[in-house]
Formats: sequence, C-alpha cells, structure tokens
Amino acid sequence: MTLNHGIHWTEAEKGVASEALKKAYRRESESLLEDVKEKADRISGMGELWQLNDFLSARRHDIDGKYDDQEDSLMFSLSRLVKEGWLAIADLEDLAADKRAKIKVLTLI
Amino acid sequence: MTLNHGIHWTEAEKGVASEALKKAYRRESESLLEDVKEKADRISGMGELWQLNDFLSARRHDIDGKYDDQEDSLMFSLSRLVKEGWLAIADLEDLAADKRAKIKVLTLI
Repeated sequence: MTLNHGIHWTEAEKGVASEALKKAYRRESESLLEDVKEKADRISGMGELWQLNDFLSARRHDIDGKYDDQEDSLMFSLSRLVKEGWLAIADLEDLAADKRAKIKVLTLI
Repeated sequence: MTLNHGIHWTEAEKGVASEALKKAYRRESESLLEDVKEKADRISGMGELWQLNDFLSARRHDIDGKYDDQEDSLMFSLSRLVKEGWLAIADLEDLAADKRAKIKVLTLI
C-alpha cells in the first residue's frame, strides 16, 4: 500500500496542489537566498567558504527532490512542506477535506 | 624525465617556496572571498544560487590541488601561481637563479 492508495486527484485539485508547491518554493527560495547572502557576508576564511559550498550542495540536493509534482508524490510533497513550515494547511483549503486530513496526519510522522 | 630532474632544493629554498605558497594562498583566498561576497550580493534567483554552488565547487577543487608543497611538485606549483598572477618572480628572489629561470620558462607553457 502506498501513500496514494485509493486517492484520486481531480484536475482542479492537481491545480491547487501545483499552485501550493509553487507558493512553497517561492517562500523557501526567498528564505534561502536571504540566508545565503547573510552567511556570505559573514565569511572571513576559506574554511567557512567551503562550509558555504557544502551547505549549498546539501540544500540543492534537498530542494531538487522535494518539489515533486507527480500525482503519486503529491501527498508526500505537500505534507513535508507543511511540516517544514513552507505551507500552511490553510494554503490547501481548496483540496477535498479527506486529502487535507491525510496531509495533516502525514505531518505527524 | 620529470620537471624536477636534477633539481635540488636546499632547506632554505624549501622555506622560501613554502612562504611563497602561503603568500599566494592568502592573495588568492582574499580575492576569492571578495568575489564570492559580490556574487552572493547580486544573486536574485535559484538558478544563480546553484551557479554560485558550482563556482565554489570548481574553485575548491582547483585550490585543493594547487598548493602542493611536496618537493617534487614545487616547480610546477610555483610556476602555475606565477602564471595565474598570485606570485611575482620578485616573490621568489631568494631562490637560486636557475630555479627562477626554470619557473619563468614553465610559465610560458
């Protein structure tokens, strides 16, 4: 049984999910850009510079895998973004209630 | 035949070479830190952020391999740093004349 067992996404709901992913991506991007600018500004040596490099590589790997909008991944993508604070359940109010409930449960895992 | 064929480094010359490498490293580091801070300051999107990540990875790889102070690598390390502008021949004035001459020739390759 997968996370998506028995879950059907209407075209409208896929649109809602897609918009929510875009909104979360914008929020996370803006926050990351601000964070990186601050980090860069404080760097005073090469060790710290390579730490920034490692930090960027890790964030890139994380973000590259996180905004998956394929139907099979949507429940997981959305719940993770809620858990991390990039989305609020309120951002998903146009989804069916059962999906919102499942997303809430997944944020507890 | 290697670059070091017939080249003998006295302890004093190894000290001169080591100091020159440190000087070049300081210069290159300061320049890179300044460059990265400027780049970070100008970034306005995630594509540019990942470009900075790639840039840092490439610079790190380059710098990690460049400051080799093993005796067999000194001629090559020093000539490369002269070629790149991080050292001047004048920084090596305490080396024997034949070594300075060879370093100059290597910068032409």
